Amino acid sequence: MSPSAILLIDCPDRKGLVAGVANLLYKHGANITHADQHQDHRAGLFFMRVEWALDGFPVEAFRAEFAAMAQELRMRWRLELSEARPRIALFVSHYLHCLADLLHRHQAGELACDIALVISNHETARSLAEFHGAPFHYVPVTAAGKAEAEVRHRRLLEQAQVDLVVLARYMQVLSPEFVAAYPERIINVHHSFLPAFVGAKPYHAAHARGVKLIGATSHYVTDALDDGPIIEQDVARISHRDQVEDLVAKGRDLERMVLSRAVRWHLEHRMLCYGNKTVIFD
Amino acid sequence: MSPSAILLIDCPDRKGLVAGVANLLYKHGANITHADQHQDHRAGLFFMRVEWALDGFPVEAFRAEFAAMAQELRMRWRLELSEARPRIALFVSHYLHCLADLLHRHQAGELACDIALVISNHETARSLAEFHGAPFHYVPVTAAGKAEAEVRHRRLLEQAQVDLVVLARYMQVLSPEFVAAYPERIINVHHSFLPAFVGAKPYHAAHARGVKLIGATSHYVTDALDDGPIIEQDVARISHRDQVEDLVAKGRDLERMVLSRAVRWHLEHRMLCYGNKTVIFD
Amino acid sequence: MSPSAILLIDCPDRKGLVAGVANLLYKHGANITHADQHQDHRAGLFFMRVEWALDGFPVEAFRAEFAAMAQELRMRWRLELSEARPRIALFVSHYLHCLADLLHRHQAGELACDIALVISNHETARSLAEFHGAPFHYVPVTAAGKAEAEVRHRRLLEQAQVDLVVLARYMQVLSPEFVAAYPERIINVHHSFLPAFVGAKPYHAAHARGVKLIGATSHYVTDALDDGPIIEQDVARISHRDQVEDLVAKGRDLERMVLSRAVRWHLEHRMLCYGNKTVIFD
Amino acid sequence: MSPSAILLIDCPDRKGLVAGVANLLYKHGANITHADQHQDHRAGLFFMRVEWALDGFPVEAFRAEFAAMAQELRMRWRLELSEARPRIALFVSHYLHCLADLLHRHQAGELACDIALVISNHETARSLAEFHGAPFHYVPVTAAGKAEAEVRHRRLLEQAQVDLVVLARYMQVLSPEFVAAYPERIINVHHSFLPAFVGAKPYHAAHARGVKLIGATSHYVTDALDDGPIIEQDVARISHRDQVEDLVAKGRDLERMVLSRAVRWHLEHRMLCYGNKTVIFD
Repeated sequence: MSPSAILLIDCPDRKGLVAGVANLLYKHGANITHADQHQDHRAGLFFMRVEWALDGFPVEAFRAEFAAMAQELRMRWRLELSEARPRIALFVSHYLHCLADLLHRHQAGELACDIALVISNHETARSLAEFHGAPFHYVPVTAAGKAEAEVRHRRLLEQAQVDLVVLARYMQVLSPEFVAAYPERIINVHHSFLPAFVGAKPYHAAHARGVKLIGATSHYVTDALDDGPIIEQDVARISHRDQVEDLVAKGRDLERMVLSRAVRWHLEHRMLCYGNKTVIFD
Repeated sequence: MSPSAILLIDCPDRKGLVAGVANLLYKHGANITHADQHQDHRAGLFFMRVEWALDGFPVEAFRAEFAAMAQELRMRWRLELSEARPRIALFVSHYLHCLADLLHRHQAGELACDIALVISNHETARSLAEFHGAPFHYVPVTAAGKAEAEVRHRRLLEQAQVDLVVLARYMQVLSPEFVAAYPERIINVHHSFLPAFVGAKPYHAAHARGVKLIGATSHYVTDALDDGPIIEQDVARISHRDQVEDLVAKGRDLERMVLSRAVRWHLEHRMLCYGNKTVIFD
Repeated sequence: MSPSAILLIDCPDRKGLVAGVANLLYKHGANITHADQHQDHRAGLFFMRVEWALDGFPVEAFRAEFAAMAQELRMRWRLELSEARPRIALFVSHYLHCLADLLHRHQAGELACDIALVISNHETARSLAEFHGAPFHYVPVTAAGKAEAEVRHRRLLEQAQVDLVVLARYMQVLSPEFVAAYPERIINVHHSFLPAFVGAKPYHAAHARGVKLIGATSHYVTDALDDGPIIEQDVARISHRDQVEDLVAKGRDLERMVLSRAVRWHLEHRMLCYGNKTVIFD
Repeated sequence: MSPSAILLIDCPDRKGLVAGVANLLYKHGANITHADQHQDHRAGLFFMRVEWALDGFPVEAFRAEFAAMAQELRMRWRLELSEARPRIALFVSHYLHCLADLLHRHQAGELACDIALVISNHETARSLAEFHGAPFHYVPVTAAGKAEAEVRHRRLLEQAQVDLVVLARYMQVLSPEFVAAYPERIINVHHSFLPAFVGAKPYHAAHARGVKLIGATSHYVTDALDDGPIIEQDVARISHRDQVEDLVAKGRDLERMVLSRAVRWHLEHRMLCYGNKTVIFD
């Protein structure tokens, strides 16, 4: 992949938005490789993602001129460069399947980021993290010491200049202050088909209800438990033969898939949040 | 398909159940074509379905001898003959896609039953029902006249000697008395992935929550709304581009699939309920 | 849905295409509701679909001005109006499930077209077609009389001013002349996951090979048997328990789904063919 | 899981088979936990899998008595003990995703086997294998030295007493002699939906044909390339936006899923081959 620039826009819909953006890109000689847009008519909103080859493109001149136009049109926008590798932190507890999956994908070149560090409230993940060359930090969390643990977390993330936090089956709830410090930058995986089976032990609940499909959901974390903007969901068929352990085993594969897709889309700047939803540009 | 007999068993698990059943069938010369069993170890329960060719098989002699053994082993059981065509009633309101689907499948020979009658609280379905040769009954339902309408329903079902009631997008809630009169013999389709989005307007709720998959569920009707034993579920992928109307359109295909499968499995005597769940023998 | 205009473009990729189109639309006051584009970098091709509200839009003035620009930029293009209801012909043989499905969807408002006529080499479909108010023509096809039958087909299609031919499980191969007369305007459904199991009896072949999934494919018809541009494919899981008849029954549902989606996308002007492939704008 | 015994039977169908097996198990006091059977009526064949708790069960007495009955009824049969951990060899070339997946699942307890060794024609996999404690053997394969390399392979497998060979994206074709030495004991993953795209570069072929779904297939290896009994298949949706690299990336997830399921089912003694097909007991 040769280096590219990505422009993400989110604003009230009005005529001429596409023409405005396209003209400015054309004027600066952009060679557009992908462009996608979306209108939500009921909400009167416009969303756009444009990607173009960076080769020789005058990024700063364009940025200055675009900023002026954006202000006039009340656009929220970001200009990202594919070469800037975001730094991510992986939080994990006992279950290592999501961590192992993300570390392997990173190594195989599927995730364009740096793994800044791995944080866990257990020692279980240490050897796996270190095998992949990721700094590992054991931060125990007790009922009494929770606030203190979070202070350590925050300091580690700041020192490592982390852009994105991924909760790869991390079984502790984050405080509202933590969440507020990383808006739309914390991704979690929940082991159910949300909004069904919010909260603890969703596979047990699914088994008790007798559903015929189980699911997993990746989402941005907000203050409300398991209620943030949904990024990706997937399901697997089960039958009366499946006990809770079988659901757990089948669910692991779903969790790995929906979490890794969410992380990849975030890193490729394919997502915009609005209201409590996501727009995902493919 | 040549005629066959189907034996369904549901009892506390213990050693020798399979041997007992298999010996009795062998003694009467049964040519077994399908056999399936299931143990729920935690609940200590045993479930079995056996199907054999009827050709020359002494049904009544077997039935008498089996009844004695079943009593001893505390079995709940049914002996069904594939030639006995159950009589079904289809309830429908405005939306005709499930009705049209079931009537077409019936005509194409996919559903081994007689369509005894179609009942609706609107006239919309009349021509479709009559084209397929199914007696149509218009029974208006008003808030005040609900009890009276149900008296008419019950009488129609009794006169038509109905074995199975299928709610093919029938938008009225049945009374507990009605439900009690047809235990495990009323099948409904709910247009969500239960237990998510119980109750009215599930597609609106799914759109508001921003889910990435929508679903539909067929289930036996019990007193608790949308809470009966789940028979079948399926899902379809949606995106931020889909408005509520798109969810409704995609959902129609799911509803037709999960309802028609449920009806077919019921007619083929493939299902047993236990607790609030179903065992489905394939 | 309020009336809209749809512009489809297919041309060599170069800088400024989006700006050019967007400017011209903006100049004429278009209120864009959907826009999607695609670049195939290796082939150096650009594809675009734009939809805008027709309300007060000066179609003919825009068309004239756009035509000039298009010639300069070597664009292949079409301007379609959502209000112009295409006229479609349905061809069918013995199996009626796809026909019944399309007629029901048409009646339910899912397909924005007129059913100009139904043609069959059997009488089986007559009552179904006539129930839905579609003119039915029985055109028997014998080995000797094949050319003659096609003369009748062609005349019927011309008289009925047909825009799109849908082969809804029509089991006769069309002549190259027939195919040439309706380029990218004949849609077929093949009952396998192409390119696996080309030709006759694909379910038998799938059963013999022991596959674990069966499929169905809708595609535009070209001279090469089952080799035209693929529009849609879907699959269903099967097991060793499924005999050929079970594959046929499960396949019917797949065929209905992939064929109806293809017809809908064609009618909504969502597809462009290039090489032997399709671009499908969602 | 407490230890269990598994009996697999494959023989001409006749009356009394189930009764015979069930009686013998009952006589020896077996506590059956799972039982499944299948009849292929056209082929006149009977297949059965029974699993029971080993606790106190007289395995050798049962085996002797069963062998006598089996000979009389012309059964092919195997009696397996869940405690005997099969020893498996993993072959891999450049692409490590299937290897990483299997090693992680093994470590997580999903695969009841010992990883006897990892063999590769490249050094790439060494550190991964060694991190998981699996002996790694680098056996280069050149056009001229192929026969010699296979002599080394065979010796390594014999020394390690390998029961099952898994080709986890191993890109060399095995000789007929090698295949003959491990009948129904070599599992391969092919990166297409067989029988579509047999042979080299299936993702390139899929892209060229313009399919809308890609697939992967796990199968037992026979002499005919990519033609052995299919174990598992899965598919993923793609669009015109996906280039060959995207197909490769999406395909990796399919390959991991279908290969790991095949290995697990083999290890759990859930499969029987007949003709060129598999029966998979769930």
